[in-house]
Amino acid sequence: MSEATTDVLGIGNAIVDVLSRTEDAFLAERNIQKGAMQLIDENQAAELYSEMGPGVEISGGSAANTIAGLASFGASGAFIGKVRDDQLGDVFAHDIRSIGVDFTTKAAAEGASTARCLVLVTPDGERTLNTFLGASTGLGPDDVSEDQVASAKITYLEGYLWDPPEAKEAFLKAARAARSAGRDVALTLSDPFCVERHRDEFLELVRNEVNIVFANEAEIKSLYQVETFDEALQAAKQDCGLVALTRSAAGCVIADGDDVHVVEAVKVDRVVDTTGAGDLFAAGFLFGLTSGRSLVDCGRLGSLAASEVISHVGARPETNLAELARQHGLL
Amino acid sequence: MSEATTDVLGIGNAIVDVLSRTEDAFLAERNIQKGAMQLIDENQAAELYSEMGPGVEISGGSAANTIAGLASFGASGAFIGKVRDDQLGDVFAHDIRSIGVDFTTKAAAEGASTARCLVLVTPDGERTLNTFLGASTGLGPDDVSEDQVASAKITYLEGYLWDPPEAKEAFLKAARAARSAGRDVALTLSDPFCVERHRDEFLELVRNEVNIVFANEAEIKSLYQVETFDEALQAAKQDCGLVALTRSAAGCVIADGDDVHVVEAVKVDRVVDTTGAGDLFAAGFLFGLTSGRSLVDCGRLGSLAASEVISHVGARPETNLAELARQHGLL
Repeated sequence: MSEATTDVLGIGNAIVDVLSRTEDAFLAERNIQKGAMQLIDENQAAELYSEMGPGVEISGGSAANTIAGLASFGASGAFIGKVRDDQLGDVFAHDIRSIGVDFTTKAAAEGASTARCLVLVTPDGERTLNTFLGASTGLGPDDVSEDQVASAKITYLEGYLWDPPEAKEAFLKAARAARSAGRDVALTLSDPFCVERHRDEFLELVRNEVNIVFANEAEIKSLYQVETFDEALQAAKQDCGLVALTRSAAGCVIADGDDVHVVEAVKVDRVVDTTGAGDLFAAGFLFGLTSGRSLVDCGRLGSLAASEVISHVGARPETNLAELARQHGLL
Repeated sequence: MSEATTDVLGIGNAIVDVLSRTEDAFLAERNIQKGAMQLIDENQAAELYSEMGPGVEISGGSAANTIAGLASFGASGAFIGKVRDDQLGDVFAHDIRSIGVDFTTKAAAEGASTARCLVLVTPDGERTLNTFLGASTGLGPDDVSEDQVASAKITYLEGYLWDPPEAKEAFLKAARAARSAGRDVALTLSDPFCVERHRDEFLELVRNEVNIVFANEAEIKSLYQVETFDEALQAAKQDCGLVALTRSAAGCVIADGDDVHVVEAVKVDRVVDTTGAGDLFAAGFLFGLTSGRSLVDCGRLGSLAASEVISHVGARPETNLAELARQHGLL
């Protein structure tokens, strides 16, 4: 196995977030499930956009946010995802490249516009996602280079990729290329409704295709259709290699077979916007893994990165995470 | 004179801001004058964008920010400005309409893209503006309806309109329509370099075309080419009708002939981003004027709105300004 040139390669939907503050009633009136991600088509996106308040456009996308977090820790990152050659596609590409991430996926020259996620942030800081996948659905196996995958210590895949049909093929191609190169493959389950949509395939993935799994409490309970967190943990210990389970303010539980650790969350003065909390947890955790830290320190680094991103609007760090980790004695 | 149906009609460049945090050295290396606004062409914009860090896209534009502030106070506002029919143009139009502002200027179907301002925010919270005027330069007299102008208590014009040549004609048409309908015309000098570029014409404007003038200390000193604030104040008292002069943390001075008032600034815990400070001062002041408040209260309302906008990233209010004014005993 040759030396890895990249710490983590992320593959995911390339999305620009449109964040807007709203009241709980706005969600209730439209039967939008608070805290979840729902897929919407172009017409629904136009309708919801016309009804919502003023927005702020910020690059997003789950795996892309994670790679941005890794870059902020000083790790080397690459990203594969599909935008259209339009203004928001340019914004996405600029933002991720400007932080030193290798992003070379060719923008689509026709078809749907760059993916947008209408993020409704309620007064409690909770975010509710309404995603128009747009050009993201054009991601296919041809966009994945097996050489690039083989050059990364870890290939990180978002469960949301299971929604656009072609992307699934890209996902599997990458996962297999990584394993045959002796690399690690990580998956985040993304969202409980995403798990609901693809449960059987996700079970197959965590058992046979990936060796690192990220999930929050709702997602892992949905995967195993169980009532309690502990039941989910026991099931995950059987199925997954390394698993990192996040529980918001209750911290996280990390299991590698029978090696189980419970790590506290980093306290936050005021939760402004939870967008990106899970993505940044994964960033810190993967940074820890690729730099050879203990599982407990991986969990602490994840919690620290999550605490930063929920303290402000937007799903990417505003503070240098390496600096923050040093301040917390973690680097 | 028939009853006004709109409190304030703003006319200005329709711009989307791209805000990015940077270090002072980034400006120094590129000979960019900190705190000022410089005009850049499409190539310069592309080059600067490629060099700067990740951004956040937020609707901006000086007069548009002022009208957004007025809407947040509960006043009725309208805006005239030119975007292209592209994604950033849609963002601009959505954001201003979503807060109840009447915005019906037809988007350009061809030509340059929607105007962008690359806003570089240094660690001290100071903002430095690099504006690509793009589609804004297409604003012309045909975009101004004399009936709409006549229906507004005050028509508010930004000095930046003097940069795109056609917009100047739109400006004069609006100012004259307002005066012949017996309405007020307000002008903000916008920026000391803008004053430098157009000094003689601005002097003509404040003497003969407008009856309310907004300026900060640097702008009014540049207009009269004097060394001290007091010299500028004395000159402005001669030339202008009502003049509101802002001095950052030192508050503002308001003069209506010999009726001169000095009003304190509202203290801010931490200045995050000064983008929009002058625009929001004008919003509060104009809200006070159109609701019949004393000049001192107009100044207080202006200072309050400015204090809100410099406490966060972006040039439009995140807090309901009517609510904030009530909390401060100003409503």
